[in-house]
Amino acid sequence: MNRSPIGIFDSGIGGLTVARAIYDRLPHESTVYFGDTARVPYGPKSPETVRRYSREILDWLLAERVKAVVIACNTSTAHALEALREVSPVPVIGVIEPGARAAVAAAAGGTIGVIGTAGTIASNAYARAIRNRAPDARVEQQACPLFVPLVEEGWFEHPAARLIAAEYMAPLRDAGISALVLGCTHYPLLRPLLQEELGPGVMLIDSGAETAHVVEEVLRREGLAAEADATPEHRFVVSDDAARFRAVGSRFIGERLTEAEIVPLG
Amino acid sequence: MNRSPIGIFDSGIGGLTVARAIYDRLPHESTVYFGDTARVPYGPKSPETVRRYSREILDWLLAERVKAVVIACNTSTAHALEALREVSPVPVIGVIEPGARAAVAAAAGGTIGVIGTAGTIASNAYARAIRNRAPDARVEQQACPLFVPLVEEGWFEHPAARLIAAEYMAPLRDAGISALVLGCTHYPLLRPLLQEELGPGVMLIDSGAETAHVVEEVLRREGLAAEADATPEHRFVVSDDAARFRAVGSRFIGERLTEAEIVPLG
Repeated sequence: MNRSPIGIFDSGIGGLTVARAIYDRLPHESTVYFGDTARVPYGPKSPETVRRYSREILDWLLAERVKAVVIACNTSTAHALEALREVSPVPVIGVIEPGARAAVAAAAGGTIGVIGTAGTIASNAYARAIRNRAPDARVEQQACPLFVPLVEEGWFEHPAARLIAAEYMAPLRDAGISALVLGCTHYPLLRPLLQEELGPGVMLIDSGAETAHVVEEVLRREGLAAEADATPEHRFVVSDDAARFRAVGSRFIGERLTEAEIVPLG
Repeated sequence: MNRSPIGIFDSGIGGLTVARAIYDRLPHESTVYFGDTARVPYGPKSPETVRRYSREILDWLLAERVKAVVIACNTSTAHALEALREVSPVPVIGVIEPGARAAVAAAAGGTIGVIGTAGTIASNAYARAIRNRAPDARVEQQACPLFVPLVEEGWFEHPAARLIAAEYMAPLRDAGISALVLGCTHYPLLRPLLQEELGPGVMLIDSGAETAHVVEEVLRREGLAAEADATPEHRFVVSDDAARFRAVGSRFIGERLTEAEIVPLG
């Protein structure tokens, strides 16, 4: 049993959907969320830069004595997961492997769609993780750069959101996908719109929810889980502009988002 | 007469519209363009962070022996222009003052609309600059966070772009604006769409083109202009991911965008 917090980090706000999934699945675990809002977004940055930033955040979280680290950011998982695992004394869990695992199970041999930011799709990380588990899997990928700003505007149901979703989903529909991985932490907020666009026959996979599942497994296996009667504490730390983080972040996790501290990194 | 280059900087790619306006108006001037692609976008960052980054770029440009510096970024102009002017031995020109001046002239007493990123609008910098020149001016501001990703996707004429433009322009149309300042360097690429949306009665002000005009005035006044027979050289330097800069940047200035060098800052 271990009451230390779980460290969760993202380039900014999106990782809050992963944090929410962790609160839901592990209601007794405390967390420290770090959003690197001074350097968001990671998507357009080079793999080396993303690794350097991720390493700085890992070091900060370790100094806060976290018992495990969740990389709640697809770009950082794609570029930095292996590097962080090599140096971290505590378990490091990314969002890609859990999403890929769930997609392979859900598609049951059918074509798997993957959507994400331009950086995540270009990294090919989901396709690689899927083919590691199912070498013959058919994977259809689609970058959706307009989804993040749509979510941050709160336009989940706007007619423009429908047109944009229709455009991005068209090649996936044409490919006859059976499951779709939401490969960006912002996308769960567009879930109803995407389900409508693709129809009920396509299973949507929320990488964040799958990641919370893996976190639970890892904590149990390593004997790191909190007591069942522990009262959780949730801290929020950002590298810049706590006010905007609060304003947009409350769309992601509602009133659970308490005051955010600022810790500049780098 | 002075053959040193003009330094131009932006948080990323958008400043290329300002660079293009400078090439067009001052065809004998050489330039060095610095795009801080490792830290783009500046919009969501705090004023202190934007000032620190801008100061680092100023120092780099001065080491390259530029004869003048153009801040081709609305956020950086809003937060850092005064600070850079205090320390720079060469003239520093921002994009806000020229846009505000042109808007006051074009509106001729009518209401002036201003559009920009959330950061630029929140800074109130255009409204302040307009009221410095015309204290009684009526100013109607509108943040348009989806325009930058639309431009970077190249969706200038997409039906979703029309819906988004209609939504953002509605309060400006209702306010009966006479002129509209395009207060973000990406927006000139949406000019045809916005003109259509607002009708021919509204004058669109491209801050970049107005800035090129002011650069010409300053170089002439300070005796810094290049010879009329000088052959210009244009360098492009970014802090990260030169490949993406080239791919998206070519939408902004076409084949003039030659190879970009990488210089990490900070």
